[in-house]
Amino acid sequence: MKEKFYQYIQELQDTITSTLEALDGKAVFKEDIWKREEGGGGRSRIIENGAIFEKGGVNISGVHGALPPAMQSYFKVGDVNFFACGLSLVLHPANPMVPTVHANWRYFEMYDQEENLIDSWFGGGLDLTPYYIFEEDAVHFHSVCKKSCDQFNPSFYPDYKKKCDAYFYNAHRKEGRGVGGLFFDYCKKSDRMSMQNWYDFVTTVADSFLDAYIPIVRKRQYLSFTKEQKNWQEIRRGRYVEFNLVHDKGTLFGLRTNGRIESILMSLPPVVQWKYDYHPKPGSEEAKLVAILQNPREWIV
Amino acid sequence: MKEKFYQYIQELQDTITSTLEALDGKAVFKEDIWKREEGGGGRSRIIENGAIFEKGGVNISGVHGALPPAMQSYFKVGDVNFFACGLSLVLHPANPMVPTVHANWRYFEMYDQEENLIDSWFGGGLDLTPYYIFEEDAVHFHSVCKKSCDQFNPSFYPDYKKKCDAYFYNAHRKEGRGVGGLFFDYCKKSDRMSMQNWYDFVTTVADSFLDAYIPIVRKRQYLSFTKEQKNWQEIRRGRYVEFNLVHDKGTLFGLRTNGRIESILMSLPPVVQWKYDYHPKPGSEEAKLVAILQNPREWIV
Repeated sequence: MKEKFYQYIQELQDTITSTLEALDGKAVFKEDIWKREEGGGGRSRIIENGAIFEKGGVNISGVHGALPPAMQSYFKVGDVNFFACGLSLVLHPANPMVPTVHANWRYFEMYDQEENLIDSWFGGGLDLTPYYIFEEDAVHFHSVCKKSCDQFNPSFYPDYKKKCDAYFYNAHRKEGRGVGGLFFDYCKKSDRMSMQNWYDFVTTVADSFLDAYIPIVRKRQYLSFTKEQKNWQEIRRGRYVEFNLVHDKGTLFGLRTNGRIESILMSLPPVVQWKYDYHPKPGSEEAKLVAILQNPREWIV
Repeated sequence: MKEKFYQYIQELQDTITSTLEALDGKAVFKEDIWKREEGGGGRSRIIENGAIFEKGGVNISGVHGALPPAMQSYFKVGDVNFFACGLSLVLHPANPMVPTVHANWRYFEMYDQEENLIDSWFGGGLDLTPYYIFEEDAVHFHSVCKKSCDQFNPSFYPDYKKKCDAYFYNAHRKEGRGVGGLFFDYCKKSDRMSMQNWYDFVTTVADSFLDAYIPIVRKRQYLSFTKEQKNWQEIRRGRYVEFNLVHDKGTLFGLRTNGRIESILMSLPPVVQWKYDYHPKPGSEEAKLVAILQNPREWIV
């Protein structure tokens, strides 16, 4: 399974980066191959100063070895070995009318000291962070998410949509990071789902990513915007930074377990503003976004 | 003691903000008075878009009540009551030749259920974060710190200088946030120091703040700078954000105990950049700064 999934994310990284490069038309991805001292490594691909993408990364990694102490206490296990691989992507468009997107799909295995497999699971999802609300874009994104889920279990979409809203939540601001999507974790073998079924599910979701996001980019990329709208995007990007550095488990994990810092922090936006006690005008488009982030919607009813 | 110290920081806030306003000459501090539902409140003063100060805050607060659960486990105590007050300031200058400065002085009391005082202590310090190294500025700042300390105990300056370097450290980047200053905490009654002695020490340090910082601002405020030097400042401000959101205990405490978010996050810089895997040219002034942050210096020998 681990070879199969790693092979899959390698190919998916190629598909996604070549599609995004063709769409952007100006910038290309810069590739960095890195090794992890304790075992494994990764292939980071970063785009900067594109026509569409101001900054973004599509990274894969596959790491293994003794489970670091910080992760032992997190998973409440002892001295075990692990294998983990996944693809993570974040895209920060220049145009504030185009939403930021994040996605991650990962697979984890744990072994005892005799290298017997003792646990394995999939996790991941995708979620959208707009700066201006186009309701049809959120509906489109969620429709693609639902379609992938419904092929496997009708409860998956409502469950994972709710988990996504709960996870990508800036508790200190009492607002969501964006309009959500899917979030699932610890997808393990059960009566209804074998690990092969979960592999099929996760790859179906991952294969749908470009269909979920690209039509939105195409629709909004040529919209004009003002300096004030760009400022609003940069202020909202501050909330993105706050979530990733204060709340995101993946980021904090990476920072505390000596991960590759530049690959982890590729998720941070290129230019960010913090203004003191900034609130959009009541009734404005900016206020409409905040109201939706404070009360997550059901986009598909 | 608590009334005396709160009175002191109120007056100190007035002194510091009026001095900074006179120095800036363009922007004035905006005052926000806030109340804490569970007891107490504060007075935040924020400056933005000044001639010298692009953003800054000089805040005081005095809060009391039942110690929140997150703080109970932090202090390893049970159901106790507390009082805490302090002044916190952060100044982000527009000119990258002028360093950012941070300072905080605070007093804490804990009581049992019968309102008997069971513990009390002072804490605080001040530290400097330059974007370009002027060695004489770091020496000046540390000299003022040392002079305040030496009036009380010759071991204070070396101890608290070392604690400052250790605390304001971006472990995930393996570099200091700045060139340090003083950091002390849990300053409690001992054979050598009564609480009155600690009060005298902390107020001596706090009274020296303007002497430590203002001469540096005056010396550097009219230096010219390029767009590239401003970019470097904004990239380095990213490290400031990383420290405050990932490592700073005060910030995380505030965010997790329902503090006043805008007053806590006033420390975040106005405009910040994150570039992927950015490294200054070997031999440049920018590289010289990084080398010093990676190997904290003794500024006074």
